[in-house]
This record gives sequence, C-alpha cells and structure tokens, in this order.
Amino acid sequence: MADFTDHLKPAHDGTATLQAERDGSAIDVDELARHLLSRDDFLQRQQKVLKVLSKERLFKKDQQLNLARPDRYHLGLARAKAIQRFGRREGWDHADYSMADYLSDEMSPYFLHMSMFVTTVREQASKEQQAYWLPKILNYDIIGCYAQTELGHGSNVRGLETTATWDFKTQEFEIHSPCLTASKWWNGSMGRTATHAIVVAQLILPIKDDSERFTSHGPQTFLLPIRDVKTHQPLPGIAVGDIGPKYGYASMDNGYMLFDHHRVPKSAMLSRYAEVSDEFGGFTRHGHPAVVYGSLTFVRGQIIMHARLVLARAVTVAVRYCSIRRQFADRDAESRDAPEMKVIDYPTVQIRILPLLATTFALHYTGEYFYKLYNQSRSTIEEGDFGPLAELHSASSGLKSLCTTLAADGIETCRRAMGGHGFGGGSGLIGLNSDYLSKPTVEGDNWMITQQVAAYLIKKMQQCVEKPENLSKDPTDEIFKLYLRDKDHKIPESYLNPASEEIDDASIVSVFQWRTAALSYTAYQQRIEQKKPWTKMMIQLHALSRAYSEQVLVTNFHNALSSARSHLAPPTPVVLRTCFRLYALYTMEQSSTSFLLTNSIPAFCLATLPDSILELMAQLRPHSVKLVDAWSIPDFLLNSALGRYDGKVYEELFDMAHRRNPLNKVTFNPDYRSEEIVLGSGDGGRHVLAKL
Amino acid sequence: MADFTDHLKPAHDGTATLQAERDGSAIDVDELARHLLSRDDFLQRQQKVLKVLSKERLFKKDQQLNLARPDRYHLGLARAKAIQRFGRREGWDHADYSMADYLSDEMSPYFLHMSMFVTTVREQASKEQQAYWLPKILNYDIIGCYAQTELGHGSNVRGLETTATWDFKTQEFEIHSPCLTASKWWNGSMGRTATHAIVVAQLILPIKDDSERFTSHGPQTFLLPIRDVKTHQPLPGIAVGDIGPKYGYASMDNGYMLFDHHRVPKSAMLSRYAEVSDEFGGFTRHGHPAVVYGSLTFVRGQIIMHARLVLARAVTVAVRYCSIRRQFADRDAESRDAPEMKVIDYPTVQIRILPLLATTFALHYTGEYFYKLYNQSRSTIEEGDFGPLAELHSASSGLKSLCTTLAADGIETCRRAMGGHGFGGGSGLIGLNSDYLSKPTVEGDNWMITQQVAAYLIKKMQQCVEKPENLSKDPTDEIFKLYLRDKDHKIPESYLNPASEEIDDASIVSVFQWRTAALSYTAYQQRIEQKKPWTKMMIQLHALSRAYSEQVLVTNFHNALSSARSHLAPPTPVVLRTCFRLYALYTMEQSSTSFLLTNSIPAFCLATLPDSILELMAQLRPHSVKLVDAWSIPDFLLNSALGRYDGKVYEELFDMAHRRNPLNKVTFNPDYRSEEIVLGSGDGGRHVLAKL
Repeated sequence: MADFTDHLKPAHDGTATLQAERDGSAIDVDELARHLLSRDDFLQRQQKVLKVLSKERLFKKDQQLNLARPDRYHLGLARAKAIQRFGRREGWDHADYSMADYLSDEMSPYFLHMSMFVTTVREQASKEQQAYWLPKILNYDIIGCYAQTELGHGSNVRGLETTATWDFKTQEFEIHSPCLTASKWWNGSMGRTATHAIVVAQLILPIKDDSERFTSHGPQTFLLPIRDVKTHQPLPGIAVGDIGPKYGYASMDNGYMLFDHHRVPKSAMLSRYAEVSDEFGGFTRHGHPAVVYGSLTFVRGQIIMHARLVLARAVTVAVRYCSIRRQFADRDAESRDAPEMKVIDYPTVQIRILPLLATTFALHYTGEYFYKLYNQSRSTIEEGDFGPLAELHSASSGLKSLCTTLAADGIETCRRAMGGHGFGGGSGLIGLNSDYLSKPTVEGDNWMITQQVAAYLIKKMQQCVEKPENLSKDPTDEIFKLYLRDKDHKIPESYLNPASEEIDDASIVSVFQWRTAALSYTAYQQRIEQKKPWTKMMIQLHALSRAYSEQVLVTNFHNALSSARSHLAPPTPVVLRTCFRLYALYTMEQSSTSFLLTNSIPAFCLATLPDSILELMAQLRPHSVKLVDAWSIPDFLLNSALGRYDGKVYEELFDMAHRRNPLNKVTFNPDYRSEEIVLGSGDGGRHVLAKL
Repeated sequence: MADFTDHLKPAHDGTATLQAERDGSAIDVDELARHLLSRDDFLQRQQKVLKVLSKERLFKKDQQLNLARPDRYHLGLARAKAIQRFGRREGWDHADYSMADYLSDEMSPYFLHMSMFVTTVREQASKEQQAYWLPKILNYDIIGCYAQTELGHGSNVRGLETTATWDFKTQEFEIHSPCLTASKWWNGSMGRTATHAIVVAQLILPIKDDSERFTSHGPQTFLLPIRDVKTHQPLPGIAVGDIGPKYGYASMDNGYMLFDHHRVPKSAMLSRYAEVSDEFGGFTRHGHPAVVYGSLTFVRGQIIMHARLVLARAVTVAVRYCSIRRQFADRDAESRDAPEMKVIDYPTVQIRILPLLATTFALHYTGEYFYKLYNQSRSTIEEGDFGPLAELHSASSGLKSLCTTLAADGIETCRRAMGGHGFGGGSGLIGLNSDYLSKPTVEGDNWMITQQVAAYLIKKMQQCVEKPENLSKDPTDEIFKLYLRDKDHKIPESYLNPASEEIDDASIVSVFQWRTAALSYTAYQQRIEQKKPWTKMMIQLHALSRAYSEQVLVTNFHNALSSARSHLAPPTPVVLRTCFRLYALYTMEQSSTSFLLTNSIPAFCLATLPDSILELMAQLRPHSVKLVDAWSIPDFLLNSALGRYDGKVYEELFDMAHRRNPLNKVTFNPDYRSEEIVLGSGDGGRHVLAKL
C-alpha cells in the first residue's frame, strides 16, 4: 500500500558513501578474492549454486526470524530435499552440495548423513558392509545419523553408558540403555529425519571359560535401522525423538534415543577394525584403532576454514554499516555545525572491528597450512605410518579451540560495535550468532581439547631436553632447540632492537615462538621434573595451547606474505602486511603479561603497543570496505540490511519493518480490562495462548 | 503415554549430589539471603508475587521457545494485561508490579508506560499537564511510550531529525519527519500497544522580526495520541508499527513512527522547563534543563542492581549443573576405574564460574552504594543544587558500562562452561542471554558513555593539580591527592610488602586506586597539557573509565565487608572475604599490564596471581552451591533443567524432549523424491512454506 513514507530518503546516501569508500582504495578486489578463494573453485562454485538457490522462493530468508522452531524444521527439511533435487538436476558434485548448505545458511537435516554417517561407514565398515550400505547411502534410500554423544557423556567417549551385549546363542547383539543418562543425545538428523543410525556402544562379551560373567571391550560402532521404512515410526524397543529448541540449529533435529533390549544381527557391528569372533567370548582387532581419529580431525580442519568465512561475514556487516552510520561530530571540531563522523572513524569502533578484519586473513593462511598438513599426514597414515598423528591431532585441537573462539567472540564483538541496530534482526547476525555458538563446544570442547596440545608440547620439550640428538625437524623442535641453547633462556638480543622505532616482522614471529617455548618449558619442568598434578596445571595448560596456536597463526601469516607479495598488485601486499602486524600486535597486547613474564618482550615495548596499533588501524582504515568485499560474501548469504553491498541500510531496515512484518497486520486490544487480545478477531487471539 | 523409558533413572542422583554439597558448607543461607535481599522487602515480595503467578497457566514458560515471534507478542500482551488484573485484585504496589515483570521474565508491552512515559510526565510536564494526564496514565486509560531514538540517531540526541515547527497563526505544532532516518525507531511499547507517545523533536520557531526564517531550539518533548481510541489504528498523518524480530525482547513491540506534517495543539509540548511564549518567536526556559538527566540516571541505577541478579541467575545455573555433571576421571588417578570428577572440580571450569560468583557480590555492594549516592544527590538536586550531578552522572555511566558488560559476558561464559547442555534450551539461558544482550547498548552505549567518566576524571585531576586548595572531599579527590603528593608518583612502599606471602585487603584497594589516579594523570597530561586530540585518546579513555569503575567495585566491596562481618554468622564473613579477594585478584590478573605500566604493582606480584587465584577458588568451591542458593532465584524464574534447585537435571531434560516437545508429535517424510514434508497430512506441511 502506498503511503507518505514512500518518497522518503535517508539523510545520507549509503550507496554513494560505500562507493566513495571503494574509490578511496586501489586494492584490486577481484585479484584478492581469487587469491583467497580459489581453492576447490570456491568463487565459481558460489556463483553457480547461488544462481540456482536465489531464484527459489523456498530459499527466501525474509521471514525466518518470524517462524516458530517447529516450522523451522519443516522448512529445513523442505530445503534439504529441494537441494537434493536441484543437485541431481544440475549434476552437482559433493562440493556443490556443501556450497548449497553454506549459502542456504542453516544446518540441513541431512547434514549428518553425508558427513559423519557416510565417513564412518567408509572408514570403519568392512568391505562387505561397505558394498551393502554405500549404494543405499549415496542414493539417499536410507538417511543416516551418528549416535555417539549421550545425555551423560559427551567428551568422555570411554564413559558411554549404552551397551551392546553379545548373545552367543542367538548370534545377536542386544543394544540397551541401562539408565536415563545412557540416552543418546544431541545427535544431529536423528530426532525426526534419520531412518538409520550408527550407534556407539560399549561392547560387552562373555568371558571365555566363564559363561556367567561379562567384560567390556570399549566403545564400538553399530549400524542399524531405527525407524520403520513405511511409517517412519520408531522400531519396537527404540524411543527416539527431537530434543527441543536450542540456541541455534533451529532447522536441525538434534535427537535423543534409548534402547530397550533391542536386538540386532551380528552384521550390525562395523567390522573393519574389530570383530566378534566365532569362538565363545572371542574378539579380534584388525589394524590400528587410532585411525578412527582421522574423521574427527578432518571435521576439525573444515571447522577452521569455516571459521574464517564466518568471521569475515560478521566483519563485512560491521565494516559496511559503520562506514555508513554517522553519529556525533568530532569533539574537537571548531564549528558547532561540524558534520557527524562516520562511526568507523572512531578508534573505539576500529579497535573492535579492524583487528578482527586482520584476523580473517590470519585464519585463512593457517587454514591453508592446516589443509596441507592434513593431506600430508593423511597419506602417511594410509601407508600405515601413524607417527604424524600426534602432531596432527595436537595442531588440529589447538587451532580448533582458538579459531572457533575467535570467530564466536568476534561475531558478538562486531554486533556490539554496531550499537542499537546491531541488536535488530536487520543485522543478519542473529542466526549466525546462535548457530555458531555451538562451535566452541562441538567436536571437542574448546577448553578440554587444549590439554592434548599441552600434553604434546610437554612431551616434545621432554624429548628436546632429554634426547636432543633424536630430534625430528618439526618446526616446534626448532623453536624449542633455540630456547634451550642458552641455559639462562635469554632471548637473543637481535630479536628486539630498542633503538629501532618498530618491531620488524621476523622479530614478531620470533617473539611469539619464544613465548611458546618458554611456556612449554615451564610446563615441562612442573609436570615432568616436579611431578605437579595435572589438574592443578589445567588453566596454564590452556594458556599454553592458546599461545602455541597464536604462534601458528602468526608464523603462517608471515610465511604466506612472503610468497603472496610476489604476485599481488600493489597496494594489496602492503595492506596485507598491515593486517599481519595488526593481528600480531593486537594479540600481543591482549596477552601482554604472558609475553612479559616469559621475557619474550621487554616492558618498554609493551608500552608502545597501543600507539602502534592505533597507527596500523589508521593505515588499514581506507581499505577496509574493499578488504571485506574481497571475501565475496553474497547479499543472499549476508541477509543483512546493515551489511548490504549497495549500502541501502536504512531503506532496507524500514522496508522490513513497514512492509514485511507480519505482526503489523494484526491490531491488538491493549486495554487490560478486556480479555480479548486481538481486536475484533474471532477468538480474540486465544488460539495463541492455547499453545502454552 | 507410558513406555519403557518411564522407570529409567540417571546414573547419578542429582538431588543427593546437591544435598551433599549443601551439607558440606555451614553457611546460613537464609541469613545471607536476608543480608543481600532485604532492601524494599525483596524476599517477601518475591514470595508473594510468585504465589500468584506460578499457579496461572498463562505464565507457564514451557513452550515459549517453541513459539513464533508474533505469538510471543500476543503472549506478552496477554500476560501484561493479566498482571494488571492480578495487581488490582491483590492490591499490589508499584514494586509488586515490577516484581511480577521480573518473575514473568519478559519485557512487558506496558513496560515503557510505567517507566519512561510516566517519569517524563512527572518530571517535564507542567502542573496543569500533570493534573490532566497522570490520572489517565495511572488508570491505564491510555498506554504511553517514549519516542526519542530514531533510525538515524540514538546516542546523539542533539542530532534527532524529527521536527516540531510552531505555527504562530494556528497556535499549533507541526510534527514532521523530513527524511527516512527521522523515523522514530526502537521505541518500546510503541509498535502495537501504545495509544499515546512522548515524542522528542527539534523545536523550530520563527525568528522574531523575521517571519520568513526559522531557528531550532533543540530537542523538546511532546505528548500526543498516536492511535484512534476505538479502532487502535494509527491517526492520520502517522505511520507507526513494530520494527520486527530482534535478538531478544520477543514480547516487546519496539516500534517505528513517522509523521507527515502532523498537527498537535500547543498543550502537547511538556512545559515545566520550556514553553513557547505568546509573543511571535518567543521561547522561555524555566529552571535548569540538566535535571532531565535525572530519570536517565535513575534508570542506570536500576540497570546496575538488575545486573547482579542477572549474573546471579546464570551463575546459579552453572554452579548447580557443574556440581552434578561428571566427566572423566582425574588424569593422575591410580586406578583405571577411578570415578569421574564433578566438572566443577576442574580448575578450567572454576576459573570461568567462580570469579563470576564473586562478581555477583561485588556488583551487589556497589549497587547498594550507588543507590545511596543517587538518593543523596537527588535531594540536593531537588533543593536546586546541581553540583553533585557531574559526579553522579559520571559514576552512573562508568558503572552502567562495566556492570552490564560483566553480566552480558558472564552469561555467555557460564553457558560455555556447561558444555553441550549449555547450548540447549534446558539451560534456561536462551531468553536471558538474548534479552540481556541489549543492555550493553541501551541507556548509553557501553563504549560511548565512558567518555563522560574520563572527561570528569580529567577535570578532577586538573583541579587537583591546579587548585589543590579548593578540593572537595570526594573519594576521588583523596586518591588523586595521594598520587600527586610525591612528584615522582612512586606508590608508597607500605602498599605492597614483598616479604609478605599475600597482598592484604587494604593494599588491594590501594593498588586499584593508584592505577585509577595514574591513568587519570596520564590522560590529564595528554589532554590538558599536550592538547592531544580527544578522538585519538578514546581507547585509553575507555580503559580509564573501566579502571575507575573496577576501583569503585573493589573499594565498595571492601568497605561493605567491614560492616557486614559484624553481624553475619561464621563462616559467611570469611567466605565473603574470599569472594572479595577472588574478584579483586582475578580482575587484576585480567588487566595486569595496566597495573604494571602504571607502577601500581611490581612484576613479581603479577607472577604469583595465578596461584593465589587457584587457592582462593579452592577455598570458595565447597560453599559455591550455598552461595548461589542465597541469591534465592526461584525455579519459576530460572526455568532451567540444568539449574533446578532439586538437581533433577537429566530427568527434566529428558521429560522436556520426550513428553513436551511439539515437534515430536509430527511425523515427517524424509525422502527427497517426495514433495510432501509431513507424512500423510492433509497439505503435506505446505502451510508452513506459505509463511515465507
């Protein structure tokens, strides 16, 4: 409906403002975008899949925030099914499907089917089992989920309470939930979608020569149907359903599942690495069980690469909006009529957004490094050499913890930097925020898994101290050796030149490495030499892991710049170097005491950090809009009035409120004396109250 | 329906576990609760109102997370109306109504009516206007809102774009929105509920002796009807509605409003302090306009006291759940069958929860101090002395910023400390979290308002340096004087005794005060002596405000303990002292570089902080369940499976999922080849897709 608001324009033109920002930087956005997003044809793939999804009404995100959670699952399933149909029509490959999930921006109810479910079958099923199951899986004749976590146990897999007891007589397993906390819990795609599940349960076998007693052989994996093929109702002996609303993941049916002495045939147990043998109480293991960590590690690798795009998305919204938003004139302006400043020109806004912009690049180069490391180790493992597994697992744990923390906290920091409108639905961050808050916990809790990193570093340091002649040539060994060279552990003077105006790039890297070595050495002394209890050390071990991972980010960023500089047109290499320094010095300032107490940096250096950071932010500021442009997050994905590429922030916010808000179609009765809620409606709005 | 899950119990009994925790501490919970919550009969009032609300089906919180946002407003309005009816039936006073809002735990669509709307009428309307409006307001014959913030301006009230132009001929004001960004925006209760609004607009008057030209007299307040009494439709010339979904505040109709040359009579302008006079172009101010800050300051005072209860609520959930949750045995346990540890016994969990538990008490004592300060200043102001306004405004700004940041971040820290279940709806933190995230922004953005604190401290320091003989006896002056006594600004040696094992309590306070003085002095030198641009100083000024406010918290906590000790039974005083030291030393460790660089504390002290904090947490740990019990948050408000008083965590989580989740009543068709979403239903679930 037309009204007097139709012709109104905002006081400042957002489109012109962003254009001026873009004109003010000579960065070649296309070139930088290709530099960042060429792996696996990301950019072309994004274009291709975007073209399909963006013209489908089903994928319109407009009303999502107005839908009830049960409706969000309806919608999620409808979209997941549509994506399968599009993909088959368009001939998509696996990466195209993943791109469709990424762009549709919600957890697909099919997600576990083509991730943990199929991966586990590929890795842990015998050849015969694979031949039987894989065609059904790939054809979506069955939909699978992965039921490991329970109500009472997540991180501690050895503590799972579901049992699978072998009945020698009938040659069946009896899957059973002995208590409530044994209920499977959280398992994605299980609540409403899946027809089959991989169930992780404690394998219980009778003891040889003692048919009365049983013993546990630890957690094993079983593949079984959980719902009827026709009715989609749970099979007898199984209680399964959706666990209810969560922070995010509205479209995903995270489930619960309990078993009541539920019997499955011998073939249900995935038997590539372990098998119940034919003799009474017999159990055979084939090969190295450590390989099961493989799939978890791969998932963590994806988490790190995903983190950079998530953070880039939040930063894109914040940079664009804060470049358009104006508030207050400069306090020192001479005229009372001085124009209002763009809020991104306030250092108090810059300090929240620009270090995060720099962090997106830090994450990127480490993501690239990590994929390389994973692929290298992967082939070694497949050749039967499990040596690199410790380093791989350690690196993946530390980086998963740090990167997801940075991204999760970064989204909220960006949101708050946008003031009031950051709290509104027009920010486009509500779904991203509530979905992403799962990441610091899933695939290894961010506090818990850092113990693995610390344990690895302590062991490495012990080797360096005790058997320096046996050292490998890992980067970590090199760092530790340098630290141990001088018995007083004095940082080489060449690192930091007090006469110099600024810390040079290589010295920055050295300082981060020195801190890692010093913290590792202290942890080694306390744990190995002084036998300090592990539990009492846990806080400092978490800090050690973080320091190590920050060092990995700084080192890889620095290494990448040397090679990237050679082929990128100016001023991009210089701007990326500014990002490197900003990320590194900002990180240093955030944990300055740790650098100080490890003698990695003298106090006089710390005192100069705030001014250096201010200067770096001023250098980065003119390029910030083009830098976020390079991350190439399409408007379809941003789904943000504040972050639109064309800068029409206020027009879109107003349109959402005035023309697309279903609540405005209802007229209410605000008089408390009346029990009628909706004015003049049939039931007075009581149908809503009936939902309670 | 009965099924095999009915008889299942969790592996460990949560009720027994919490009972053992309670038995392990001799704290008198009732006494501590009275100590904390006696102001304004809080505890009795909570009991009284709880009794009324908890038996009403309308106030059941069970299904809230399953409702769509438009339905949440329906429900919010129904509840707001019911509370009015209960209150009149039960003879509630204003504080009882506030308690009902607190317990029902959502922003009432009436909220602005009885807060900013009535307060503004009381403070800014003339006697005649008050006599006309107040009876209608108190009787809820009209429902009001407060329309200040606009699409383009929030913090900078002087920049508001809505105009109120005086038409001398007709003796009317023409309220008008000259551009889109002039749209009122965010204003609570305005979108669907209010019949009337206080509108803040730039008053435009013709210039005397020049009937062609106009001049602005700055923002003034107008009270006008915005909707028709009968139809509740917007009046002609007004476009008003709800702005749509936000992070939180689902039950609140934050609104937008635009005016198209909308005419209101002269009496619409609230005229206690300013009035359009009868002569052409005439405008008269009565009294001191600064008093309008009064209501904002009062709102900030409430925000601080509210923050402690919000944080206490998150900490209550985290402490109880982490005392029940078990995961992993001690890594150093000798037996492979060692029992799993309660997760609260991990220092990595303690370091996230226990300093926040200590913070609830820190906030409490400063809240008490602040109310005292407010009441003192208030009476001075009402006597016409505006002297204390600067100190009051400064303190309220700094504390609002710090306390709401601590609470908002604290909720999320607690949530993450609870691992997977913290992400679920059973945490009870979803609504709290998303509602509370508004607080760092509303009533003065947490980064922006700290400038007022810094400006105040710089001015204070300037007075101390330039006219030490004129000093008042403010606590801040005392601190500054001490700092300035020695021209090298060396901290008195008596503060920190290197020989002593621990920093004594008084020294802790001194250290915080010293840092505030040192940062103030640096800011004074840079701004006043070196004329450094304000904008370039903004980051450090924010840090200065935080340091000052942390000092206020530490000082008040310490002062309160001296008096509280005298009447609380052991071991409560000792435990509260542990809280004081934990809060202070944890805060010191978080900003250790700032203490170091201001010479407030030597490096050797910093190095000992982690061990001191570990030790304090170990001392606090046995009392943690009873300490959160003392905050007396009823289960009705907690609405949390994880935080239930009786510890039945797993039973409640399972019941919510298995018996009370509406999604489990629907059976879906997961086969992508079918367009049907809901299996065998009439429209196949397509009604949901129609909502897009």
